[in-house]
Amino acid sequence: MKVSELGEFGLIALLAEIVDGTRDTKDSSWQRLVVGIGDDAAAWQAGGAVQLATTDSLVQDTHFDLSIITWEELGWKAIAVNLSDIAAMGGTPEYALVSLALPGELDIDNVSSLYRGMAKIASRYGVAIAGGNIASADKTMINITVLGSVESNSMLTRSAAVPGDQIAVTGYLGLSAAGLIMLKQNLKFDAETTQLFREAHLRPMPRVDEGQILLHRSVKAAIDISDGLIADLAHICQASKVSARIQQNTLPIHPALKSNFKSDYLQMALTGGEDYELLFTASNMIMTRLRKTMPCPVTVIGEITGGKPGQVEIIGADGKTIPLEKTGWEHFKSRL
Amino acid sequence: MKVSELGEFGLIALLAEIVDGTRDTKDSSWQRLVVGIGDDAAAWQAGGAVQLATTDSLVQDTHFDLSIITWEELGWKAIAVNLSDIAAMGGTPEYALVSLALPGELDIDNVSSLYRGMAKIASRYGVAIAGGNIASADKTMINITVLGSVESNSMLTRSAAVPGDQIAVTGYLGLSAAGLIMLKQNLKFDAETTQLFREAHLRPMPRVDEGQILLHRSVKAAIDISDGLIADLAHICQASKVSARIQQNTLPIHPALKSNFKSDYLQMALTGGEDYELLFTASNMIMTRLRKTMPCPVTVIGEITGGKPGQVEIIGADGKTIPLEKTGWEHFKSRL
Repeated sequence: MKVSELGEFGLIALLAEIVDGTRDTKDSSWQRLVVGIGDDAAAWQAGGAVQLATTDSLVQDTHFDLSIITWEELGWKAIAVNLSDIAAMGGTPEYALVSLALPGELDIDNVSSLYRGMAKIASRYGVAIAGGNIASADKTMINITVLGSVESNSMLTRSAAVPGDQIAVTGYLGLSAAGLIMLKQNLKFDAETTQLFREAHLRPMPRVDEGQILLHRSVKAAIDISDGLIADLAHICQASKVSARIQQNTLPIHPALKSNFKSDYLQMALTGGEDYELLFTASNMIMTRLRKTMPCPVTVIGEITGGKPGQVEIIGADGKTIPLEKTGWEHFKSRL
Repeated sequence: MKVSELGEFGLIALLAEIVDGTRDTKDSSWQRLVVGIGDDAAAWQAGGAVQLATTDSLVQDTHFDLSIITWEELGWKAIAVNLSDIAAMGGTPEYALVSLALPGELDIDNVSSLYRGMAKIASRYGVAIAGGNIASADKTMINITVLGSVESNSMLTRSAAVPGDQIAVTGYLGLSAAGLIMLKQNLKFDAETTQLFREAHLRPMPRVDEGQILLHRSVKAAIDISDGLIADLAHICQASKVSARIQQNTLPIHPALKSNFKSDYLQMALTGGEDYELLFTASNMIMTRLRKTMPCPVTVIGEITGGKPGQVEIIGADGKTIPLEKTGWEHFKSRL
């Protein structure tokens, strides 16, 4: 069977099984591992602290198109997507390692711009770029590893959602997809809208402070929205062995998205992906307190239920279930 | 200027400068950073321990050729080259993150074999595969990050060599280059030699125990040989601002290498690379004690001198300096 037939998530499950088969419970590294394959970041105990580690790559022509993103924006985004994974654990990002594969023909100025973009976001989030690697390749590929920590022994995970929890999301959904479509199709909007869509897609601001507040306010389950709301909510449901019901009319849709993408905004919000917002679940009581203290919009969009594990249901304005053909971004499958 | 004109090491220096420009001494991550860009691994203080982190990638057709390496061997080697970096710091490897870029056309069985190879070496060295990432790409690229620790606050670095130190190397040199040439050119040798060359190139055994012994026995300066003896010794000399003199007739050349590559064995030993042996420097006294306790051959091959920083000189059997055209592996430049 081909990789494209099994798909990204099937492949991850298969590889996790191979690794699990070699798990050695007498080994110190395995004993100290708190969260392994299948969450936003790995976590293990080291001294008195819990270390977090995540890795993500951006491949030219798969993840980015140099005709719509500058090298500096690319550097920013490559680090941002990893910080977002640390945010989804409630952690503090601390160090980044940068592994680059570059064509020899590339201009040095482009690589310098890439690094300036990385250095800017690293500096903004208190992250030190501590090392890396450079290799030659036909196309540019950027692999970033971010290391961080959580203060307490607990952290946000995908597997802690329970039936009865409310489901909430930070910020707005679908703006990054709007940015991608605008840039790809060269659509024209007013200056403010253009900037809103552009920044959402090219310079996401990972919700690091917000993730830490969630953890301190007793939230247990979270994920960052990279694949798309439905796909990432399904990841929570699979890991937690629960199901979810979303109310379409509660989704946080920015007016600029609704007015400029009249027929597509719902699909973009549900499956566009790369929002880098936090999706989390908690009891009514925790959620009520939270919404007063978070520094960004928090919207309750549905609830966790005890149905078929992994299932996500969308209820339309008319009270009926909306059928979904595509659920979000998956590698080796087509997009949007 | 193009990346290929500046070269790998020039580019690393440029990028290190950009990162250094954003170093924030008031920031906790920067304050705790002990070793940054430019050594085998990054190191920082976390709780009472020192964390180590290294990342390295293998790019299809740049680093590996699927006509001569099996997927399982590739998995082994991808982890091995990172463990070797941790070994060169005197550390204990603990966790690995695996980031794969794969063509959708690839057979699942190959990916499973790749992971089995990774799981085998991870298990052998007490390393837990804690997470990773999968993306689609035209060619296979494997990026591994290995996290580890050192017990004490000191570690082996490239920058600690001092004039008067002896220079020594573990094991033999040039066997991996012999394996590469044998496999590429389909050369035939006796079974034992074939296995020796093949294993050296495809299944290197990183010197993790040996690196820890070096650290405990007060060695300060070390590097692992990935680019080639001369190139890696030059890295030590540059970082330590010293120079080095190597005696050709002391180099540890395996009899099988000498007899089967009569005209090339010296060049292979000096510049072949991918030996994953440890190259280190220490005083006569430390070196004498060490050679009795190391579990592998240790050969003194020259001395650190106070000459032009970064310069490496080879003295031939006739007492004269041997001129060197190529010094080893560098990305964006040609090889062997």
